Amino acid sequence: MTETSFTLTALRDLTTISASLPAADTAAGQAAQDRQNQLTKPPGSLGRLEELAAFMATWQGVDCPKIDTAQAVVFAGNHGICAQGVNPYPQEVTAQMVANFEAGGAAINQLCAVNGAQLSVVALDLDRPTADFTQGPAMSEAETLEAMARGAQAVDGSADILVLGEMGIGNSTIAAALACATFGGGAAKWVGPGTGSDAQGVARKVDAIERGLAKHDALKGNFPAFLAALGGREQAAICGAVLAARAKRIPVILDGFICTAAVAPLFGADPALLDHCLVGHASAEPGHRLLLDAMGKEPVLSFDMRLGEGSGAALALGILRSALACHNGMATFAEAGVSDA
Amino acid sequence: MTETSFTLTALRDLTTISASLPAADTAAGQAAQDRQNQLTKPPGSLGRLEELAAFMATWQGVDCPKIDTAQAVVFAGNHGICAQGVNPYPQEVTAQMVANFEAGGAAINQLCAVNGAQLSVVALDLDRPTADFTQGPAMSEAETLEAMARGAQAVDGSADILVLGEMGIGNSTIAAALACATFGGGAAKWVGPGTGSDAQGVARKVDAIERGLAKHDALKGNFPAFLAALGGREQAAICGAVLAARAKRIPVILDGFICTAAVAPLFGADPALLDHCLVGHASAEPGHRLLLDAMGKEPVLSFDMRLGEGSGAALALGILRSALACHNGMATFAEAGVSDA
Repeated sequence: MTETSFTLTALRDLTTISASLPAADTAAGQAAQDRQNQLTKPPGSLGRLEELAAFMATWQGVDCPKIDTAQAVVFAGNHGICAQGVNPYPQEVTAQMVANFEAGGAAINQLCAVNGAQLSVVALDLDRPTADFTQGPAMSEAETLEAMARGAQAVDGSADILVLGEMGIGNSTIAAALACATFGGGAAKWVGPGTGSDAQGVARKVDAIERGLAKHDALKGNFPAFLAALGGREQAAICGAVLAARAKRIPVILDGFICTAAVAPLFGADPALLDHCLVGHASAEPGHRLLLDAMGKEPVLSFDMRLGEGSGAALALGILRSALACHNGMATFAEAGVSDA
Repeated sequence: MTETSFTLTALRDLTTISASLPAADTAAGQAAQDRQNQLTKPPGSLGRLEELAAFMATWQGVDCPKIDTAQAVVFAGNHGICAQGVNPYPQEVTAQMVANFEAGGAAINQLCAVNGAQLSVVALDLDRPTADFTQGPAMSEAETLEAMARGAQAVDGSADILVLGEMGIGNSTIAAALACATFGGGAAKWVGPGTGSDAQGVARKVDAIERGLAKHDALKGNFPAFLAALGGREQAAICGAVLAARAKRIPVILDGFICTAAVAPLFGADPALLDHCLVGHASAEPGHRLLLDAMGKEPVLSFDMRLGEGSGAALALGILRSALACHNGMATFAEAGVSDA
């Protein structure tokens, strides 16, 4: 772990921070695309793999991007909103799953091992859930900034790519609330079954979000403030990690609905804050497609997964490795003595 | 390489061969699904990864399928149909690309290295193209059976999975012709730009296929005979490899449009002959989606690729590795002490 150059003293600074962060290196991206057109294949025939190689070049700022070190971080938090009966699992499962991550028994452990990512888990005050957002703000501004700083500190500045995931019983309700606060359209549009809610559970989620957003109506249009009001700690940590990665020009792979919704407040503050982020997969949670459309993000994969933990992002890492292997390892027409069309 | 138990003395035997080949082990598939439901995740939350694990169990005939050894084979052939101006690249490119495969410079080399497949390339009489199917049969029955046998012999009986690909200038026209002969609908429905034909090139492909199918109209409904009449050697070899793999209970990953169309004659003879085959990706070649729909196959990936060589199949191999890592490596709820819902 290294110190990051990303600092934030107030949530409102999120609306102006873009100017101090690195922008896309479009020259490197173009050089990568030019290289693709010289490789022994019909131009464009590697499809999305070519785009992914150019994306990596753009953010690493080199013609031939690499993934020698891939870091995966799962942030975990607990949520006061569980008092509203929004999740069929007991809240203790968050800590139990963190123990499972640490013991190597979860899906994300296997997916990181196969796809070559170093996994770390950051449990954020699990014994101190955020407040129930139907009753008041989930977190104070200071708590939010602290969670963001913990997210930023978790980023390994020497990594070539950052895979982000989350765990937190109840956090599909947080996600739907953040999406609704950022993009509007009514709570029901954004709510799905999450880990396995039935129709009554879904109705409780919708009701809780509607009451929460009514409670925090005065924040309308102030996206950073919604991150504090709705929570939670793992969402704030993901925002901090995304900004710290940007400061280091490290491309990011976001996971599914909850991970993407976690950064909706950043998008609301300035869509360019997410330009260095891919979304690893389209979740089966119905709100995710709506969120991807609203953010203009095309997911890498679509496998009807809805687990979280960074599972879809880790899977997409394997695709990126393949994209870069072709980009860096293929012969050009000239090198191979193959006739061009 | 080991000898296979698959033998064929006449093409018409393809319509009856199913009875002598292994069927799905549905008990192993069910046991795998039962295991998935015990793992530390909401049931079904790994989506397509769970289905892929159960598919592998079904065909390997074990509860916990494995990929210790993955074999990839690229079959290459040349085609007399190139006399009709159906491809913008010169026919010598087939041999040049085979040399590129052997030197390690092609996309498939990089994708096999990243995704852990042993690659071999089988060049089928490149200096002796099949006949122009607008003038007569592309191959005799004996030539077709010989190419099928070479495909079958290429299969390593100790492999846990077989990745198939092809290379052959002009073979997107062969593919469209095979698809049209098997599923009907007119040549224009199945023809696309292939490696890069313009509108005039596409029109030449449509015209050649229409004349070819008119020439071989007497074969209507005789799908194995169409494999000989339309060609080519790499298509016949792929059919032979698919059958040899089935005889050994080795699951197969087919690549894109040309590889899928190559086995359309098997599907026409008996759709069950392809039950052990996945399709690695949906190609950007427009006929591929139609072909997948006609065959009832859901591709693993969809990245707008249109390169062939087995590139999409090799990429899907990485996804299968992730699916099996989760299946075999995750803790159950009981093992991890995690509360079930």
